[in-house]
Amino acid sequence: MTPVIGRTRWAIPEGYIPPDSHGPAPAMTSHETACLLNAGNESANVLITIFFSDREPCGPYRVTVAPRRTLHLRFNDLREPEPIPHGVDYASVIESDVPIVVQHTRLDSRQAEEALLSTLAYGQ
Amino acid sequence: MTPVIGRTRWAIPEGYIPPDSHGPAPAMTSHETACLLNAGNESANVLITIFFSDREPCGPYRVTVAPRRTLHLRFNDLREPEPIPHGVDYASVIESDVPIVVQHTRLDSRQAEEALLSTLAYGQ
Amino acid sequence: MTPVIGRTRWAIPEGYIPPDSHGPAPAMTSHETACLLNAGNESANVLITIFFSDREPCGPYRVTVAPRRTLHLRFNDLREPEPIPHGVDYASVIESDVPIVVQHTRLDSRQAEEALLSTLAYGQ
Amino acid sequence: MTPVIGRTRWAIPEGYIPPDSHGPAPAMTSHETACLLNAGNESANVLITIFFSDREPCGPYRVTVAPRRTLHLRFNDLREPEPIPHGVDYASVIESDVPIVVQHTRLDSRQAEEALLSTLAYGQ
Repeated sequence: MTPVIGRTRWAIPEGYIPPDSHGPAPAMTSHETACLLNAGNESANVLITIFFSDREPCGPYRVTVAPRRTLHLRFNDLREPEPIPHGVDYASVIESDVPIVVQHTRLDSRQAEEALLSTLAYGQ
Repeated sequence: MTPVIGRTRWAIPEGYIPPDSHGPAPAMTSHETACLLNAGNESANVLITIFFSDREPCGPYRVTVAPRRTLHLRFNDLREPEPIPHGVDYASVIESDVPIVVQHTRLDSRQAEEALLSTLAYGQ
Repeated sequence: MTPVIGRTRWAIPEGYIPPDSHGPAPAMTSHETACLLNAGNESANVLITIFFSDREPCGPYRVTVAPRRTLHLRFNDLREPEPIPHGVDYASVIESDVPIVVQHTRLDSRQAEEALLSTLAYGQ
Repeated sequence: MTPVIGRTRWAIPEGYIPPDSHGPAPAMTSHETACLLNAGNESANVLITIFFSDREPCGPYRVTVAPRRTLHLRFNDLREPEPIPHGVDYASVIESDVPIVVQHTRLDSRQAEEALLSTLAYGQ
């Protein structure tokens, strides 16, 4: 019931929060999500570092994923040390002290009809 | 003709069954699918555990994939021990007693035009 | 210039050729593609086996990818030993005698606006 | 803050720059992107080779990713030794002298509403 599965270091090279949205918030607001799964029995202390094209990385952002829980983290919601700017290319590295699994999803509602993408992050 | 390929433990961190749909059911009903491939010569006995953000996991859900068959399992159709709620973040771990391969797909038809995402699950 | 990269056995659990299309053929015809890259200096002799939910697999379908070439193979175009039915769940295993890399893409134009999905296949 | 993560050889079998676009340029122009993340402390010297279905590969295209930076490279923007033709199937191999992580994304705006796909490249 509580298998340990995953890696402790993940990377998502693609990051971009669309600057505009159509449709009712928050479900249809353009957003980027890192879905974190902690299937184990210990809390996952997670550090997220954001990389940009033209300046030094910012972070770490700190989140905790409780044992046997998933956290679908919207990059839009990260506040400390600073919000991630919209309409800017970024990438992320996600490090955890216990194994987790990370998947990346974007909902883009800049136009009337949404578009979706998703991929597993690169785990190491 | 019947190669053995795959892993016995898979994870899909992203899970979300959209609460609404447009278009003719069942093809265009919003749904999440785990596509399971059992390319080998023995039945695959599969246990699925569903993880949530704010409560203990539920499961296991039990499915069997016959030898040399694929099962495109809609999470919407899981009933025992309980249906998966719509409009709620979840994640899944899929365990099999023989090697299988798992891919995750969502068709989102909340709006007039569908959106699709797909990714290989994380296999270990 | 001609690096060897890849694996010799790949699986794509998700397969479904949408039965309908909108828009000008062939670019906007609903289709499923296995993109094969043979970056090496020898021809890749490739065998594709198609798995179904309710009957024995069919195949092998045989294709050749020349050295230093990519082949974006539409499953719609497979004819021998039999065409793949539309509107039916399937999965595929792709075996090569030299390393190749395989990516899976679907263009779904059942509705007025297309939807796309893509993922790397599972390589072993 | 600057973890080393990644591989030095990556492949993206799927490549296709849609010949048409709708919507305001450059954000909504149909494009293919290779998102490169160099999370380490040394510059990444990257060589990209483009493979076609019916002629010899072209390249290498040369790009540099500075330490602790991400580069979201549009294939549309590659110029030397030659632009990549639109509406043609291609594939790519991306080699770096230090570990990087590569993700592939396409925005297709041939129709009024965009479609998105993304997947991690194959790393070796």
